[in-house]
Amino acid sequence: MQQVKKVVLAYSGGVDTSVCIPYLKNEYGISEVVTFVADLGQGDDLEIVRQKALNSGATKSVIGNLVDNFVEKYAFPAIRANALYGEKYPLSTALARPLIAENLVNLARELNADAVAHGCTGKGNDQVRFDLAIHALGPDLQIITPAREWKMSREEAILYGEKFGIPAPVSKKSPYSIDVNLLGRSIEAGLLEDPMQEPDEDVFDMTSSINNAPNAPKDVEIIFQNGFPIAIGNEFLSPVEIIQKANSLAGEHGFGRIDMIEDRVVGIKSREIYEAPGLLLLIKAHKELESITLNPDVLDFKNIVEKKWGQLVYQGFWFGPLKQALDGFIDSTQSSVNGKVKIRLHKGNAIVIGRSSQNNSLYREDLATYSKDDIFNHKQAEGFIYMWGMSNKIWAELNSKKNK
Amino acid sequence: MQQVKKVVLAYSGGVDTSVCIPYLKNEYGISEVVTFVADLGQGDDLEIVRQKALNSGATKSVIGNLVDNFVEKYAFPAIRANALYGEKYPLSTALARPLIAENLVNLARELNADAVAHGCTGKGNDQVRFDLAIHALGPDLQIITPAREWKMSREEAILYGEKFGIPAPVSKKSPYSIDVNLLGRSIEAGLLEDPMQEPDEDVFDMTSSINNAPNAPKDVEIIFQNGFPIAIGNEFLSPVEIIQKANSLAGEHGFGRIDMIEDRVVGIKSREIYEAPGLLLLIKAHKELESITLNPDVLDFKNIVEKKWGQLVYQGFWFGPLKQALDGFIDSTQSSVNGKVKIRLHKGNAIVIGRSSQNNSLYREDLATYSKDDIFNHKQAEGFIYMWGMSNKIWAELNSKKNK
Amino acid sequence: MQQVKKVVLAYSGGVDTSVCIPYLKNEYGISEVVTFVADLGQGDDLEIVRQKALNSGATKSVIGNLVDNFVEKYAFPAIRANALYGEKYPLSTALARPLIAENLVNLARELNADAVAHGCTGKGNDQVRFDLAIHALGPDLQIITPAREWKMSREEAILYGEKFGIPAPVSKKSPYSIDVNLLGRSIEAGLLEDPMQEPDEDVFDMTSSINNAPNAPKDVEIIFQNGFPIAIGNEFLSPVEIIQKANSLAGEHGFGRIDMIEDRVVGIKSREIYEAPGLLLLIKAHKELESITLNPDVLDFKNIVEKKWGQLVYQGFWFGPLKQALDGFIDSTQSSVNGKVKIRLHKGNAIVIGRSSQNNSLYREDLATYSKDDIFNHKQAEGFIYMWGMSNKIWAELNSKKNK
Amino acid sequence: MQQVKKVVLAYSGGVDTSVCIPYLKNEYGISEVVTFVADLGQGDDLEIVRQKALNSGATKSVIGNLVDNFVEKYAFPAIRANALYGEKYPLSTALARPLIAENLVNLARELNADAVAHGCTGKGNDQVRFDLAIHALGPDLQIITPAREWKMSREEAILYGEKFGIPAPVSKKSPYSIDVNLLGRSIEAGLLEDPMQEPDEDVFDMTSSINNAPNAPKDVEIIFQNGFPIAIGNEFLSPVEIIQKANSLAGEHGFGRIDMIEDRVVGIKSREIYEAPGLLLLIKAHKELESITLNPDVLDFKNIVEKKWGQLVYQGFWFGPLKQALDGFIDSTQSSVNGKVKIRLHKGNAIVIGRSSQNNSLYREDLATYSKDDIFNHKQAEGFIYMWGMSNKIWAELNSKKNK
Repeated sequence: MQQVKKVVLAYSGGVDTSVCIPYLKNEYGISEVVTFVADLGQGDDLEIVRQKALNSGATKSVIGNLVDNFVEKYAFPAIRANALYGEKYPLSTALARPLIAENLVNLARELNADAVAHGCTGKGNDQVRFDLAIHALGPDLQIITPAREWKMSREEAILYGEKFGIPAPVSKKSPYSIDVNLLGRSIEAGLLEDPMQEPDEDVFDMTSSINNAPNAPKDVEIIFQNGFPIAIGNEFLSPVEIIQKANSLAGEHGFGRIDMIEDRVVGIKSREIYEAPGLLLLIKAHKELESITLNPDVLDFKNIVEKKWGQLVYQGFWFGPLKQALDGFIDSTQSSVNGKVKIRLHKGNAIVIGRSSQNNSLYREDLATYSKDDIFNHKQAEGFIYMWGMSNKIWAELNSKKNK
Repeated sequence: MQQVKKVVLAYSGGVDTSVCIPYLKNEYGISEVVTFVADLGQGDDLEIVRQKALNSGATKSVIGNLVDNFVEKYAFPAIRANALYGEKYPLSTALARPLIAENLVNLARELNADAVAHGCTGKGNDQVRFDLAIHALGPDLQIITPAREWKMSREEAILYGEKFGIPAPVSKKSPYSIDVNLLGRSIEAGLLEDPMQEPDEDVFDMTSSINNAPNAPKDVEIIFQNGFPIAIGNEFLSPVEIIQKANSLAGEHGFGRIDMIEDRVVGIKSREIYEAPGLLLLIKAHKELESITLNPDVLDFKNIVEKKWGQLVYQGFWFGPLKQALDGFIDSTQSSVNGKVKIRLHKGNAIVIGRSSQNNSLYREDLATYSKDDIFNHKQAEGFIYMWGMSNKIWAELNSKKNK
Repeated sequence: MQQVKKVVLAYSGGVDTSVCIPYLKNEYGISEVVTFVADLGQGDDLEIVRQKALNSGATKSVIGNLVDNFVEKYAFPAIRANALYGEKYPLSTALARPLIAENLVNLARELNADAVAHGCTGKGNDQVRFDLAIHALGPDLQIITPAREWKMSREEAILYGEKFGIPAPVSKKSPYSIDVNLLGRSIEAGLLEDPMQEPDEDVFDMTSSINNAPNAPKDVEIIFQNGFPIAIGNEFLSPVEIIQKANSLAGEHGFGRIDMIEDRVVGIKSREIYEAPGLLLLIKAHKELESITLNPDVLDFKNIVEKKWGQLVYQGFWFGPLKQALDGFIDSTQSSVNGKVKIRLHKGNAIVIGRSSQNNSLYREDLATYSKDDIFNHKQAEGFIYMWGMSNKIWAELNSKKNK
Repeated sequence: MQQVKKVVLAYSGGVDTSVCIPYLKNEYGISEVVTFVADLGQGDDLEIVRQKALNSGATKSVIGNLVDNFVEKYAFPAIRANALYGEKYPLSTALARPLIAENLVNLARELNADAVAHGCTGKGNDQVRFDLAIHALGPDLQIITPAREWKMSREEAILYGEKFGIPAPVSKKSPYSIDVNLLGRSIEAGLLEDPMQEPDEDVFDMTSSINNAPNAPKDVEIIFQNGFPIAIGNEFLSPVEIIQKANSLAGEHGFGRIDMIEDRVVGIKSREIYEAPGLLLLIKAHKELESITLNPDVLDFKNIVEKKWGQLVYQGFWFGPLKQALDGFIDSTQSSVNGKVKIRLHKGNAIVIGRSSQNNSLYREDLATYSKDDIFNHKQAEGFIYMWGMSNKIWAELNSKKNK
């Protein structure tokens, strides 16, 4: 490993990534530490964060506005893929990691840096997502991960920082570890480490409790084109606005919380709480529209593709050839996914109450009806069942013969 | 095809199966028509149904009490399999069909009948389930399906029946086609044939509306042993009681409705409304318990097995060798599925708020924790990621070289 | 069903399709019967076949040269898909059916016909492939299938034909049913219906027996670009020439025979003998090249895609949306499949003895070597195994504790 | 990590594991090093190996005769699973690792040792298989892997050994790395590291070359009961004898060589040569018998199970819960796998020329035949195709409408 001269550090403004700055300079002997903070719609004042990096010793401190990219290139494909890791988690945090990594690598190229760094620990998924994405985009760049290597406890890290002018956190640290972006919030640790312990109401921020949700239901129509949401109600909106609107509607009615036991990449089970109201609403609506616009064999196989897609993204393989090929499959199916879905938001529920597609509905009332307008040829059933059950009948005849 | 002398007819008491009785005698020239009505917990007075068959010309009319078998041999394995066709429908009606077929065949053997009959039309799934199950258990028995072959409209069928003393239905027919048993209700046809038409509140019978559900939540603990539910709250209950209790609790709080577009065996999409509060609650709890007691690779592969299991049962292959082999897989996994799940029922929601397993929890707080009690070896992450991402990195190095 | 006025009949020149001509005119009352015979490289004199149709009463008789299309649009995609139904059969006959159907429909459109017809029986796969392809391309066209409906034995069919001037076959009929095209030969029926009966040497035509194959081996290099074979040895060849050359080389050395029990679409098992020397050789080489140019996760998932692709084509779904989407996946992977494979043909064997890819090899000698040039970091293994086996170890610790 | 007092070392007699003995004593400070050498039918004189360990400083040296167990508990289940990693490699070496590990752990328990050790490097698959199996059976035992940690080149290792009286290898080292047991031989490294380099004839030992194989073919019948081979020809043999006989027959005729690019657990591709004549022959015969005794849906799903089974064993998860559950599936299917398969061995080929099952054949000549004895109801085809192709036709109608 060669001596690094300039490093680009993924920076959040928290005490851990702040301590990384002097640590990279002093323990790794790196002369220039450039910080990069990503604006993913988390709602913090990032100019303050930028300054904090400089105060902590950063040579240069850059903010990247990634919100549009995040929604268009990451969230929207996840909606088409109905991506739910463990059948539950819509990857709201996981999707941000390859995007940040891409920007770290680009900045490193631009500034002629020879390494990138992040503050992830050795137990989480994010380290894997960062490292694999950096490998994929800048295989020659060194990756430095101070928090995975130092042996300091949190208290020791704060003391270490104070030596370099990094103030100890004023407020008492939240008992939880929380990640936020436009798509959702991830909450873990603290009391939640007991899987029988219900989360307190105050861990939630984007979603109402059922008690606080309005008594009156709200019906919304979501319109899709080529599998992408383009309108909610009568409003045609930009991708970012779609997510914002969906967050606001679903959140108000208390829809979009997840409480799950999750299998991490590193082999352990962890307990996770998520809020992702808009993303979950849009995926639910998208799946429903697919149920009326895609053939049964396509739905069946797409289900396998979706599961793999979600696992790949969760496990860090965003920039890999399998992900690309799965997208080739998904793209081919989505040209038929046009239409609208009507959903009732009410007291924590998002209930599909209607779905239609003007040009792509495979539901045929003339075939499905039990009324006199039925055009389905019932007499064909005998022939169908004759062959559909043929192999099973052969098996049964063989076995009943043997039993005699 | 040989002339049939004695037939056992699956009988519901409705006008269609009643008309089958004189039809089988007159059009097929069968001298003895024995009817069989299955008690599956649907709550009708079956003695009245039995009499109706005799009044309609049946030679003999038999009631079979199948409730215990239905729950123990059909519903409980479905819970272990987390069976949800199309990711939604817990097969509440589908599960009853092979059991009825088995009893038809047994009765035919006992009475020395040479055929069995049912009143299914040529468009539904039930005909397939009946026919395949009968093939499997009595491959030599003829299957007669009058309603698939006659060309009569409903009105003509009623007129035909009246000629043989079968009274026309007094009350106006329900605009829907409804099937009921202990596990749930299936509702289709009528206005529901328009997939954008919301179901009226009056189609539901087992579940409250969100508005009518209590304002106060109800927390319940469900206890499982070897993947079977054995207690709710502190009450250890028989299998039938478990379903009843779960129906009552979930139904009261408005949980357990399904509105979906479904892909039928015969190749068409149909719109279906279901209620299955207890079964859905138990499957939800069971899946949650598996998330803490099964290894990630087991969960992953069981997911494939479950999907196939649900399809097989939906499509009529209950008595087939693949179903048996899938059960071999599932059985092997369920010895670890012991523990309890805490669920909050509230306003249409069933929210898991806790899960634990005294002897089989694979969740390890000492490995998962972010506190100082952490025993996880963070330093190993570097080695893990080195090999985990190896092939992706090789690919990236190759491609970045080419791009230069 | 409306009265048909003009029909386009798929015509082979055999006695069955010949009898169809007067049968369609007399039994179905169709005034114009147009025959279509496809040139798929089977090597017959098709002008004689064309005349025979006219002599048998056809209004018009058309030859379509489909060879180029057959190889480029059907065989080559099958090579990319490594398509082997039942892990053995490269679909040499199945691939031709949708292409013929497409031409039948096009001709029907051109001549303003209102129906198409084919002579398949009700037990084979080809009827399914024809019917589904015709449904897909001309869903409004009627499909007439005389041989599926008439009750005539072969002898009766010949007598029926003689009444209309169709001569009885002069030579004794082959004891086998044989289909031939450029890709291969399918042989079934007769003595082969006993699965313990070895095929006689005379059923084979494209491949030498092991005894007759040369004693000297022949080494060939096959070159691929984007997953398509483009050269054999040093000769860059057109797609049709590639197949011809591969047939000739493999056939001479006795490679390319298949003897299998096959699961037909209609639910029965049949015993089939195939010869497809060129196609099998090219698929073998293509798979080998993929083993060095595709990532392990891509290979793994492509295997699932390939299996489904082969089943879809076998079962008649060539023109369906799932096939299209699978092609989307496959296309994405094939841009890396460039390079060459060296194969030794010898006494019935095709043995891969080398493979290389100048720009896309993922094999890295510097990582794989056991010599001193090894750059692989062995020390990382401990960390890898720590997490790779983590969940299994947690399970073991739990169970060993319980066993104490 | 605690100081180890007594360790059980997997010992082969080679220079690497011999050097491990003084290394464990001197570098790890372990006072007692017990060696264990496994008799897996590799054909070496193990008493000499045992003495060598003692001469190298082992406190105790144990031989374990594992051959029967190896065949019955490892090879035979692999035959039922048709296990072929990468569709080629029958796991002949991989299967031995968990068995050796099990014996290491048992011996450690018996002798009250606190650690086990093996001489695997950090790049291979065997380290993963050993470590995971030891984790599973003795999660409390320390695992010591000197060769993964020392930085010595081979030459340095020899010099190190000489200091402790371990003689340098007399003969020039084979240019290849070779592993041998009753099931087969694995050959890698040296010239084979170039994937375009054909293996020399002298790397093979169990199989004849095509040129040296007899000119006359040899037909053999293999008989299976419940999926296990029990006889070859007319000889009913013990499991070990079955493997020996199959090795001898197939090997003589040159069948059973593999040359492949393989994806290792650690993420790299390697080039491997294998010989496993008997195992490959038995798997081929077993698969063939399944093709006539298992239903198509069972074959289809078992294929998925088999692939996963092979991957698990290759990747080290022999003693895991998923492997157990897959065995539950496989067991359920094998009660039908009874019958015999006739195979012609000739010049490198093993050609199936017949298969039959007296009690479990699902092939039905009365349904498959094209003769006049056909009982298949051809007229049912229309109804079958109507529903089989229904969803595809609906899709086509929709799209042809749109295209107008």
